[in-house]
Amino acid sequence: MDLLVVGSVGLDHVETPFGEIDNALGGAATFISLAASYFTKPVQLVGVVGDDFPQEHVDMLEDHMVELDNLEVIKGGKTFRWGGRYHYDLNVRDTLYTDLNVFENFNPKIPDKLKKNSFIILGNILPSLQQSVIDQLEGDNFVVTDTMNLWIETTYDDLIKVLKSTNALIINDSEARLLAKEANLIKAARIIREMGPEYLIIKKGEHGALLFHEDTVFSAPAYPLESIFDPTGAGDTFLGGFAGYLHSSGDMSFDNVKRAVIYGSAMASFCVEQFSTKGLEDLDKLQIHDRFLGFRELSRFDDE
Amino acid sequence: MDLLVVGSVGLDHVETPFGEIDNALGGAATFISLAASYFTKPVQLVGVVGDDFPQEHVDMLEDHMVELDNLEVIKGGKTFRWGGRYHYDLNVRDTLYTDLNVFENFNPKIPDKLKKNSFIILGNILPSLQQSVIDQLEGDNFVVTDTMNLWIETTYDDLIKVLKSTNALIINDSEARLLAKEANLIKAARIIREMGPEYLIIKKGEHGALLFHEDTVFSAPAYPLESIFDPTGAGDTFLGGFAGYLHSSGDMSFDNVKRAVIYGSAMASFCVEQFSTKGLEDLDKLQIHDRFLGFRELSRFDDE
Repeated sequence: MDLLVVGSVGLDHVETPFGEIDNALGGAATFISLAASYFTKPVQLVGVVGDDFPQEHVDMLEDHMVELDNLEVIKGGKTFRWGGRYHYDLNVRDTLYTDLNVFENFNPKIPDKLKKNSFIILGNILPSLQQSVIDQLEGDNFVVTDTMNLWIETTYDDLIKVLKSTNALIINDSEARLLAKEANLIKAARIIREMGPEYLIIKKGEHGALLFHEDTVFSAPAYPLESIFDPTGAGDTFLGGFAGYLHSSGDMSFDNVKRAVIYGSAMASFCVEQFSTKGLEDLDKLQIHDRFLGFRELSRFDDE
Repeated sequence: MDLLVVGSVGLDHVETPFGEIDNALGGAATFISLAASYFTKPVQLVGVVGDDFPQEHVDMLEDHMVELDNLEVIKGGKTFRWGGRYHYDLNVRDTLYTDLNVFENFNPKIPDKLKKNSFIILGNILPSLQQSVIDQLEGDNFVVTDTMNLWIETTYDDLIKVLKSTNALIINDSEARLLAKEANLIKAARIIREMGPEYLIIKKGEHGALLFHEDTVFSAPAYPLESIFDPTGAGDTFLGGFAGYLHSSGDMSFDNVKRAVIYGSAMASFCVEQFSTKGLEDLDKLQIHDRFLGFRELSRFDDE
């Protein structure tokens, strides 16, 4: 069973207080696939780009065994482009522009050999597109879903339908409050879990993440980084690390999903240390496991 | 070595979205002493009230072995009074009034028998008053200090002097950023530790707390409460639970200070479940230890 990733692939312009970068590799599916590639191979990426998409990015992804057979290249089309500027407080950013380009007509097609018993990550795209992917699947699937405020506000009913087929939902705290219409996160989590997902992960940025399953909660710390260089893609990277680890282990027990949350957090902590995907391009398993152990040391305490 | 608590004792008027209460027992030293009393006895409270201070509060504190010999009662004086109103988002509150009354002339006197080799908690009062307490101490002391934005902004130099004699400083995240003039909490922590405290605890409300010591960090989770009834005194209660546990164990190792942070968090989680000090009046050791174990379960994960 291959790991399947559906979402955007793009070119980013990013400005932070520490510098700026142009034509940088971006897009949710990119960060997800790259993070997941450290745990499981190959990763099947389903997306779309224009023929302006640089070959160096294709090469880098393929070097990481991200399989691009299902990355459609539109002749004469332009790749999705996003520009953003982060404030001194990196939690605040302005979107400078969003040019959907070929992504506007994205219509994800799942190849037959990947439809059955899939482990699939639905990156943050229009819920109706996520649903069209779910509708193509056959057999017993495991679906990990991301979404955002915009879809909660504008396409709520479509999203609710997607959640019924979602095994694990990964959103941030403000999205959770909005989706559940409830300010208290613990109550909000219960409401959202009743919408479908057996596992709910709420990301809280510099405050770590919470995992909810049945009547239990797991609180994951955030890695204490002195400098965050570029937060772009951190959430997608979390998603990729989480799902990549889970897929590779094939163990959906609560104890193992906890570990997946930590691996997701670890990958995100590498991501934000450099621009674009740079922090994810030259890692190795030992380094990732060391950071996993760093998270454990950070939060471990014993009874007397 | 008795545990010594210096700070305010007052009467609160509190309004929350869930109800209101008048003439409720309040004040930093009150919450600190009561929380600490579950770990170590007696707790020596140094403070001041007017002769309007209700006998029932005296009785309740004495029932918990909080020693009130050094709670000065000013004849004809009025007790410190504070009124506050919490918003639906309980992180936001308006101060309705602050009547210092007899607290305006508070001049803490440490009795001779408590001056030597003391374990002392300096509640959030004017740094010059905290300093006057420190100046009265003799021998080898352990000083746990609280402060607030107002003192950082208005009496910075006095506060810096207090920090030089402080072993453990407990403040919240916005105070830490303000004190260090640094937005990144990890960097801020290093700057503050260089001001004096060997241990720095940064409270982050619903996101838990961070403990800094030498080059190590410990991340404590927050207890997942579905309903917070009244946040008044939660920070002071944390301080009391932290210091009370530390005092009772006499073990200042990092591993034990971690446990103290969890006991502080546990006590705060009881505090906010009811109005005023009500959540702290009828606890027992087993209940507290159970919540400690609940925190451990919440944040524990294992390597494969």
